[in-house]
Amino acid sequence: MAKGSLALLISGGVDNWAPDLWKSRFAEKLKDRDIALLPADNVDPDQVHYAAVWQPKPGLLRAFSNLKAIFNLGAGVDAVLQDSSLPDVPLVRVADDDLTSRMTEYVVMHVLMHHRQQAYLANCQSKRIWAPRPQWPARAVRVGVLGLGVLGRDAARALYNLGFPVAGWSKSRKSIDGVECYAGDGQLGAFLARTDILVVLLPLTQETRGMLARPLFRQLATDGPLGGPVVINAGRGGLQNEEDILACLEDGTLKAATLDVFQREPLPSDSPLWSHPAVTISPHNAADSDPDSIASYVAAQILDFEAGRPLQNVVDRRRGY
Amino acid sequence: MAKGSLALLISGGVDNWAPDLWKSRFAEKLKDRDIALLPADNVDPDQVHYAAVWQPKPGLLRAFSNLKAIFNLGAGVDAVLQDSSLPDVPLVRVADDDLTSRMTEYVVMHVLMHHRQQAYLANCQSKRIWAPRPQWPARAVRVGVLGLGVLGRDAARALYNLGFPVAGWSKSRKSIDGVECYAGDGQLGAFLARTDILVVLLPLTQETRGMLARPLFRQLATDGPLGGPVVINAGRGGLQNEEDILACLEDGTLKAATLDVFQREPLPSDSPLWSHPAVTISPHNAADSDPDSIASYVAAQILDFEAGRPLQNVVDRRRGY
Repeated sequence: MAKGSLALLISGGVDNWAPDLWKSRFAEKLKDRDIALLPADNVDPDQVHYAAVWQPKPGLLRAFSNLKAIFNLGAGVDAVLQDSSLPDVPLVRVADDDLTSRMTEYVVMHVLMHHRQQAYLANCQSKRIWAPRPQWPARAVRVGVLGLGVLGRDAARALYNLGFPVAGWSKSRKSIDGVECYAGDGQLGAFLARTDILVVLLPLTQETRGMLARPLFRQLATDGPLGGPVVINAGRGGLQNEEDILACLEDGTLKAATLDVFQREPLPSDSPLWSHPAVTISPHNAADSDPDSIASYVAAQILDFEAGRPLQNVVDRRRGY
Repeated sequence: MAKGSLALLISGGVDNWAPDLWKSRFAEKLKDRDIALLPADNVDPDQVHYAAVWQPKPGLLRAFSNLKAIFNLGAGVDAVLQDSSLPDVPLVRVADDDLTSRMTEYVVMHVLMHHRQQAYLANCQSKRIWAPRPQWPARAVRVGVLGLGVLGRDAARALYNLGFPVAGWSKSRKSIDGVECYAGDGQLGAFLARTDILVVLLPLTQETRGMLARPLFRQLATDGPLGGPVVINAGRGGLQNEEDILACLEDGTLKAATLDVFQREPLPSDSPLWSHPAVTISPHNAADSDPDSIASYVAAQILDFEAGRPLQNVVDRRRGY
């Protein structure tokens, strides 16, 4: 194999992914290298310098002794970090503009659907009832973005541009034009207390696992125009406690929830979330990774790296993102 | 009555309007004047210098011989212009930021719902099916805004900011950063031929009445990712031919339609539009007029006018908008 070959490892268990398409896109963007799609293709592990992975089986990467970097083909690295035998080389997460824009589309649409009472209006339509309710303007709905990484920052800005009063919370302090930024555990309560619609774009780490539960929901604002707080989770299913979400919807602690991610995916067909009238479900498709766009991103990083420049968006394994 | 009194004439037949609320808002913003809510309040017509109206009965304004200006409490003036006895004084339409932002919220939400296959995903949820389909990015969906007044321009810019390739068409040429502007009858065909989602924000005039019909729909792009062209009408019901919309949805000329306005409002409960699976209906609430915001707008115009400055957004009666 040529110097600097790339191995592509994509879990077969993922919906909606086409490994061959990924291989052809990588081959297009990295013309002078061999691209091996594993486990289908034969490969000498010692010849492989880069791996591009999506939910690889734990232990699979251990055999590659000459790896220089691992590229995770999505924004969330929680799955790959659970592999305790992961080679100790830079792990790079995807943060390309395409993925970011898709997430912002999703967030903006679902915030607007809650704000504009779309569930009520769809129900009216199904009953052939013409019954407009008073509609408040965007400036009356306080959106809070939990997690201000690349995705959270872009979504926050788009919501601000539409007229929503937007705040954001992150572990370490950030600064975003027009967005009120809260930081650290000490300011989480104040952030939640001014939030009508909570948009969750946090990474899944030991600290964030399970945090979307009753103790957090109880701190959200209850005096907004929507008649109760709304949660939109487009981060990771492991952030949420689905029993708590259902219980909080039942007792009015939450007004509604939009969930793209779940504790178990695909969401089991017997989950009560599917049929709850206040729950909107999407099948973890808020921000699909586009093979063309991400192959370009990985190829550019490899070329930069070989020219002596630093890799971008390298995961801090201690923080977990 | 004090000099410069204002008469408020609001049709009793409009849903979702609260005349008393309007009166109190006007009284707040124009403290030194009498505000008469007609027909409830007694008033000497000769003492009234301004009228603020929403769908007044034809002929009602004729009695006011000393009117200096008429303010229409919404963006569309087609209804008031049908009154052939309307006094020949400046007719001002509302174009305040609040109304504009609300319309942009509506347009952005419904464009995103088509783009993101929300009807399909909602149907999957109702069947407890986890079945993500491939999702294209916003840059693959060409949105066309028909009508580039204040509302059309703002919506076009917001859609452009979300990554959609946006074009606009208007009778006279406009220029908007990032938006490809077409103008006049000669360029309408080219505009439609590049449009996957058509957003209609035209005024209703003799020229535009009924134009949303098969001959126009047939010119829309058919090679986009949505599987056929989509129409969103948030302008006026009189622009559309509902029989044609249904027939075009049936034979595939149109893929889907979102309608906020109808030939008859409220939409009759026996209209087949209510239950068509490709039709999304809202009860003419895309952009509600907010009493507080619009009373401020009218008050500011009156004070400007009396200080010798020109009125803004005066309707050209010959054009009809």
